[in-house]
Amino acid sequence: MQPSHNLLLELFLMFSAAKLFAAVFERLRQPAVVGEILAGIVLGPSLLALVHPSELTSGLAEIGAIFLLFTIGLETKPADLIRVGRTAALVAVLGVLVPFALGFSYMRVTGHDALNAIFLGAALVATSVGITARVLKDAGALAMRAAQVILAAAVLDDILGMILLAVVASLNQVAVNYVALAVVAAEAAALCWFMVFLAPRLVRHLGRAVTQHGPSNSPRILAVMLCLGLSLASTYIGMAAIVGAFLAGLALADHSQEWGLSGAMNPIYEFLGPFFFVYLGAQVDVRTLAEPGMLSMLFTICVLAIGSKLAGCAIGAAGLGVRDALRVGIGMVPRGEVGLIVASAGLSLHAVSGRVYAAVLLMTVVTTLVAPPFLRLALREK
Amino acid sequence: MQPSHNLLLELFLMFSAAKLFAAVFERLRQPAVVGEILAGIVLGPSLLALVHPSELTSGLAEIGAIFLLFTIGLETKPADLIRVGRTAALVAVLGVLVPFALGFSYMRVTGHDALNAIFLGAALVATSVGITARVLKDAGALAMRAAQVILAAAVLDDILGMILLAVVASLNQVAVNYVALAVVAAEAAALCWFMVFLAPRLVRHLGRAVTQHGPSNSPRILAVMLCLGLSLASTYIGMAAIVGAFLAGLALADHSQEWGLSGAMNPIYEFLGPFFFVYLGAQVDVRTLAEPGMLSMLFTICVLAIGSKLAGCAIGAAGLGVRDALRVGIGMVPRGEVGLIVASAGLSLHAVSGRVYAAVLLMTVVTTLVAPPFLRLALREK
Repeated sequence: MQPSHNLLLELFLMFSAAKLFAAVFERLRQPAVVGEILAGIVLGPSLLALVHPSELTSGLAEIGAIFLLFTIGLETKPADLIRVGRTAALVAVLGVLVPFALGFSYMRVTGHDALNAIFLGAALVATSVGITARVLKDAGALAMRAAQVILAAAVLDDILGMILLAVVASLNQVAVNYVALAVVAAEAAALCWFMVFLAPRLVRHLGRAVTQHGPSNSPRILAVMLCLGLSLASTYIGMAAIVGAFLAGLALADHSQEWGLSGAMNPIYEFLGPFFFVYLGAQVDVRTLAEPGMLSMLFTICVLAIGSKLAGCAIGAAGLGVRDALRVGIGMVPRGEVGLIVASAGLSLHAVSGRVYAAVLLMTVVTTLVAPPFLRLALREK
Repeated sequence: MQPSHNLLLELFLMFSAAKLFAAVFERLRQPAVVGEILAGIVLGPSLLALVHPSELTSGLAEIGAIFLLFTIGLETKPADLIRVGRTAALVAVLGVLVPFALGFSYMRVTGHDALNAIFLGAALVATSVGITARVLKDAGALAMRAAQVILAAAVLDDILGMILLAVVASLNQVAVNYVALAVVAAEAAALCWFMVFLAPRLVRHLGRAVTQHGPSNSPRILAVMLCLGLSLASTYIGMAAIVGAFLAGLALADHSQEWGLSGAMNPIYEFLGPFFFVYLGAQVDVRTLAEPGMLSMLFTICVLAIGSKLAGCAIGAAGLGVRDALRVGIGMVPRGEVGLIVASAGLSLHAVSGRVYAAVLLMTVVTTLVAPPFLRLALREK
């Protein structure tokens, strides 16, 4: 009896369109996730205007992303990540340095000042792991070595991106507070270290007590609490909530089968996940593309973003052989929110023009749509 | 990297407190649902003020209630409901007439005018099936005859409540539009009839095609689409969204096991359900209790509300024997939103005073907290 037509209508349209587009894309042998994002573009404000960014839709999108990375974490053994740790670190560092250097150089060569160049470079840096994780999950490839390198590198990438964001954001202040920055980075590194190395052991001991004395659904309830709690903790440290969710899944991964966690969390993700991808699409304003000169600028920025990340990460993963290095390179291509945050910080400082900001926004969409089909292809040839 | 601390903090607190209170209440051999509502009262604005009604929390609460009734529907065979149809109709009609007559008479006897009396009578009428359904589910009692009578009567109750609400809401207009009212009631009755008698057959035929030609998770996806779609359709007709969700579950119930629907929907409900019950609690302002004269008025209204519903429904179910009649009577006691909508309509017409409105609001809380322990007791003695 509540006046909730609109709320329910939006939910119904988002879910149904996502699943419909995903099914069509599956038939066309294209990644379902691209279909879901396109569903969002079609439903979003710039086309049909049936779905609008709101507190509810953005909230559901965020919860959906959290459960995506949580289920990915549940399927990833910490020991596997530790094994690829050195390669992943190389991938993460080169995957940050090469895009920054290329973006910076391009701007300087084309006659912009250093501040402009720093912002564009920084906006090209941060990988968004959500899209790649979804493609890996759909392809059943989470157990591949390349997938483990991508996931580990993405977590490290988030820490590096956070540091870069803090440096860039402080450019409008007198000086960078290097002490505060070091503390934040240390906290993030400590959390990751704790979750990968110590938490799985704690979970093993506590889990035995819970399963022996509590009701049968206790492990599931505690798992959701850990997932939400670590997502929350990550945002306090300045990392993305989804990194916390991934770390929570990781800590529980060794017992995921035994406690029925995957079986219980997958349906939750299947319901909430589409809201994340549709919401990503609904934020795109396709009308920006029609502005004069936008297409050529977008093309340049996309080539820079894709080429630099692909090259940097593939070089970092060269030790794995050409095929795996290519998989890692493609898997790290999708860009996400952090680039947008950097660009909008630059916008408010007048260090980035409105057109460059729009181009960076569209670049995140392009990388998000372009990477999945190629990643799928790269995963197939065995 | 989004500024979503508050959002995640609220979600974490709502979920964790609900599960904690539920566990404590289970230990005390009390219904978990009462614990979850109390968690909401404690977290809500009038005590700790850590959780606030917002678009996101109310939206999650509504989705939680939808999945609760959907899972209940999935566990209820349409044939069982049809078998108890005649008894359920009697329970629903008497369960509306007796509370209305008693509320109306009480107000007239205590010297109020007819308009006042109509509003209080109407506010005492509508059963909210969410609480009872949860207790029945937790007690594993959904297959009992009394449970089936309660569920069928609750659906009919919602149709009757909708008609009464339309009549009452039109009291501020010149005349009741009886034609429009009849159309709305006929639409609601037709939807229920279609979903109980025809939809299960349609589902059987379509389901065969889907399971043969589609991917393995198609039945689950289509089930969620049907659930959201019928919830939406119900609100258009003027019924509660949860009634549509229940009807959707009912239509799929015969194949719920075969298609793995219960196994997939229960985890979604387990995650989202607590938000519904915590939200119910968070809407309670305990400070109202401290106002002078409030306790005695609340006591009177609660006695009227509980006694009249219990008597009316138990008389309606008398044919089932004393024990089942008592179970049905207690199961129909919890009141929900409809009473509040009636009362707030009366408030805006000055036909209901602010104190009576507050008392009606607290009455819904009292019936919600009092009924579960007694229902649990009544279900036990076999």
